[in-house]
Amino acid sequence: MPPSPSALRVIPLGGLGEIGKNMMLVEYGDAILIVDCGLMFPDETHHGVDIVIPDAQYVLDRRENVVGVVITHGHEDHIGALPHILPELRAPVYGTALTIGLVSVKLRESRQLRGVALETIEPGDTFQLGPFDVTLFRVNHSIPDATGVIISTPVGTIVHTGDFKLDHTPADGKPTDFQRLAQAGSDGVLLLMSDSTYAEIPGHTPSEAVVGKALTRFIGEAQGRVIVASFASLISRIQQVADAAALHGRRLGVVGRSMVDNVQIAMELGYLRIPNGLLIPPNQLDAAVPEETVIMTTGAQGEPTSALVRMSRGTHQQVRIDPGDTVIISSNPIPGNAAVVGRMIDGLFRLGADVLYSATEQVHVRGHASQEDLKLMMRLTRPRYFVPIHGDYRHLVHHTHLAESVGIPGDNIFLMTDGDVLEIDDIGGAAVVDTLNLRDRFVSGLHVGSVDTEVLNERSTLARDGVVAVFLPLDTETHELVGDPTISILGFLDSRRAEELSARACEVVEAAVGRAVDSGGGLAAIESLVQDELSRFIHKDTRRRPRLLIQTTPL
Amino acid sequence: MPPSPSALRVIPLGGLGEIGKNMMLVEYGDAILIVDCGLMFPDETHHGVDIVIPDAQYVLDRRENVVGVVITHGHEDHIGALPHILPELRAPVYGTALTIGLVSVKLRESRQLRGVALETIEPGDTFQLGPFDVTLFRVNHSIPDATGVIISTPVGTIVHTGDFKLDHTPADGKPTDFQRLAQAGSDGVLLLMSDSTYAEIPGHTPSEAVVGKALTRFIGEAQGRVIVASFASLISRIQQVADAAALHGRRLGVVGRSMVDNVQIAMELGYLRIPNGLLIPPNQLDAAVPEETVIMTTGAQGEPTSALVRMSRGTHQQVRIDPGDTVIISSNPIPGNAAVVGRMIDGLFRLGADVLYSATEQVHVRGHASQEDLKLMMRLTRPRYFVPIHGDYRHLVHHTHLAESVGIPGDNIFLMTDGDVLEIDDIGGAAVVDTLNLRDRFVSGLHVGSVDTEVLNERSTLARDGVVAVFLPLDTETHELVGDPTISILGFLDSRRAEELSARACEVVEAAVGRAVDSGGGLAAIESLVQDELSRFIHKDTRRRPRLLIQTTPL
Repeated sequence: MPPSPSALRVIPLGGLGEIGKNMMLVEYGDAILIVDCGLMFPDETHHGVDIVIPDAQYVLDRRENVVGVVITHGHEDHIGALPHILPELRAPVYGTALTIGLVSVKLRESRQLRGVALETIEPGDTFQLGPFDVTLFRVNHSIPDATGVIISTPVGTIVHTGDFKLDHTPADGKPTDFQRLAQAGSDGVLLLMSDSTYAEIPGHTPSEAVVGKALTRFIGEAQGRVIVASFASLISRIQQVADAAALHGRRLGVVGRSMVDNVQIAMELGYLRIPNGLLIPPNQLDAAVPEETVIMTTGAQGEPTSALVRMSRGTHQQVRIDPGDTVIISSNPIPGNAAVVGRMIDGLFRLGADVLYSATEQVHVRGHASQEDLKLMMRLTRPRYFVPIHGDYRHLVHHTHLAESVGIPGDNIFLMTDGDVLEIDDIGGAAVVDTLNLRDRFVSGLHVGSVDTEVLNERSTLARDGVVAVFLPLDTETHELVGDPTISILGFLDSRRAEELSARACEVVEAAVGRAVDSGGGLAAIESLVQDELSRFIHKDTRRRPRLLIQTTPL
Repeated sequence: MPPSPSALRVIPLGGLGEIGKNMMLVEYGDAILIVDCGLMFPDETHHGVDIVIPDAQYVLDRRENVVGVVITHGHEDHIGALPHILPELRAPVYGTALTIGLVSVKLRESRQLRGVALETIEPGDTFQLGPFDVTLFRVNHSIPDATGVIISTPVGTIVHTGDFKLDHTPADGKPTDFQRLAQAGSDGVLLLMSDSTYAEIPGHTPSEAVVGKALTRFIGEAQGRVIVASFASLISRIQQVADAAALHGRRLGVVGRSMVDNVQIAMELGYLRIPNGLLIPPNQLDAAVPEETVIMTTGAQGEPTSALVRMSRGTHQQVRIDPGDTVIISSNPIPGNAAVVGRMIDGLFRLGADVLYSATEQVHVRGHASQEDLKLMMRLTRPRYFVPIHGDYRHLVHHTHLAESVGIPGDNIFLMTDGDVLEIDDIGGAAVVDTLNLRDRFVSGLHVGSVDTEVLNERSTLARDGVVAVFLPLDTETHELVGDPTISILGFLDSRRAEELSARACEVVEAAVGRAVDSGGGLAAIESLVQDELSRFIHKDTRRRPRLLIQTTPL
């Protein structure tokens, strides 16, 4: 359906129905504004996939219409797809200073920085992109310089909250811009799109100040070395740890590539204030006195190659966990990571560390608004229409219930998922008019999209029962075997049983070839009979169904 | 180390350091008493493994010493390894009526029931097994007829709590036997072994009564059909749902094989009281009026083949989720299942159901004691020695802290893990004197132990990047290729890229064979050079490392 020239269209390409890979399009006439361009980390079904990015084909097909990409903040689920999409899109990118700093690091790493226009925007300033007047407004979140976006369009004003919480005592002293939001509410908001990540959680999200106090206390009480793990982008947490270290006469070591990188850029841009002499140079870490040391590191989510996971396994090159060490894990595990984080904590305890984590101590607070905060956002902005964004489907559902509870009519609430096209016409009628057929894009190694659902299914089969590969050397003319069949078994049975099965399987295969040849079948018939009989034999013997790979070549 | 004849030895074979597969040995002289014999469900690293069971070799090697297997309750992590271990062990099994009922169902299913001695024990009764006087005492847990065990030994009395909570208003009206525990405390307890599963959680665990009230309210308020998912063994929950259904004039359907089986056995044994006419016969489920129906089903943990998961995907044969249905998920997802349960809830919401679950409503309470309950257990029994059992390592650690907080001296607390041998001598000195080298046993299809760690690592490799299989038909004499190399790619690249890579890989392989032949190498040298060059080529092209399978046969 072609866009109506005088209608506003809102199209989520990611982030609605499944958390992560946030990307939102706002389209008016022949102008498209993009908000965020993020990645999603793979789940346990995405075997061997490095990252998942949104299907951006719709906007790539209309790249000449794109007036700009506005980034709300520097988290991976908002910037992480830029290296894969921006080179084709070739559009300017706008964001606050730290956000643009992190985007430029990301693009430089993947050698995509050249020729990209990056524009730093001051929160509160309004700038024009095609038919849109755009204002980034400050919000609190688990990274400094986070913003939402107000987009004035010819049809009305859109408020997109980005990811946010409401913190009256944030670590960086910069609260959410309630004035700007209330002003928008006074002037009239056509559409509010608001963060749903914690729409399940009743009450208010606690302030970062709670964590600052806890960290200060635990670092003060610790007898030996303290190791704090958190997100590399949670600069305010790093600041809190640095402040607590300084207060208690300890120096600060930074370990883990992304933590080192982010500390450096945050210091350069003035988002992290570290007194002279507090930082321990990397080459002096080994010699640091434990009881005078705090180490800030990565791995709070149990990422397999992260510093803390390697420490928990005793395989980190620089840092060995000793009895008497205190490890503080300053994060909540996301649901998919709970088991690996649990095993990491167990590993640290086994090495003799005392481990403090969010299940037992208040060493982390959530970075997203809870139910009462979300209601306040709606009361401040008083939108005509409401679309919950940034959440798994159940979070979006709960957010619609909150919207109803503050009096937004059900007909004005749109429970959309990725690809749905919301059209608001110039007399203010709104409806979901279309749904794009989106397919997640899997990034694996050097390639985007070389792994598809079929390949992932194949990997699941291989992971479940392994593979039995059979090679049949056949005579070109007679199709009889000219040598022994070769059978290789990978990831199916232990070596003793594999050998034993393989010997018996060989007889089954030879008999099947003989029978197929006798009945005058061609190569395809031979392969098919071998496949059937071998499959039956193996299932009878083991009750499993490994992937069979039958190869024949006429010789 | 041979057991000292006058010392008591306590040896956990499972359940200490990793939740699940609970199995505890108590050994005195030449007598061994076994408490529980459970399984562990595989985690995401156990590709294709059906269940994990304890390494019972120590006790199988001494099977003539085994005086009996005492089962504390009928959950899988306490009985699930019996079909795999009992046939070799040939020892009598003791437990309360429902426990023995569930054990016999389990053994019958796996055709291991014949010749097994199953003895039903009344809680509170004392019976003799070799040198041990054994008493099962009633505890509350998320299954009826759950018990702990008091074991009087020549060296002193052991209290093993099994899994427990303290519930003053349990659904079945039978509280934990505080009298028996306090009596043991008065008489003197040598060793307390107590459930650590929720040693992280402060306060008291709420009563089942809380859930009963919530279920009654939600079933009363629901407009359409109600579907309640829980554990098939949580008979008290089924009773609560049946009572609520009857109260609100609804009939009860039961869906899911294990739910149907458990309802039947619980009714037969009198643990479930269902009024005549309340149950909907399976063949009448289709015709049942939605607003007069409650369906009790399985799948609360998102088990892939369970009824609720199939309903959430629209693939259940009998039950189709319709808008207006209310689904109540009456369980907490265990950490490893949080992501799949989340996706299942999303699926149910997408089909239009209203979903109530433990993150948002009190539709479940934990089945294990929290910190204050655990302290009460220690105050009641006043043990000399303490061993935390049943928990991941971090839970055991937290439980030792609780023990210290109620005044048990640190030297009398043993933080043991599976295989550790605690010896308490006849003058009451205790120490961990040895550690058995245990290896988890993986059950996969028909075989126990045909999958080892090596096979699991191979499966991980296959899952990550798939496999590239190369067959080289070589001349017996010259080792030159007598036909084209065959290259098959599984689970690595999509079909288009696989074909393209395979053509180029063929050239690399041919060149490598040529070079190896020219330098006079044998078959091994040829395989090795092909492996190296192909690996380098693929990694350069894709940055991935699929499993390479190089097969040569001289023809």
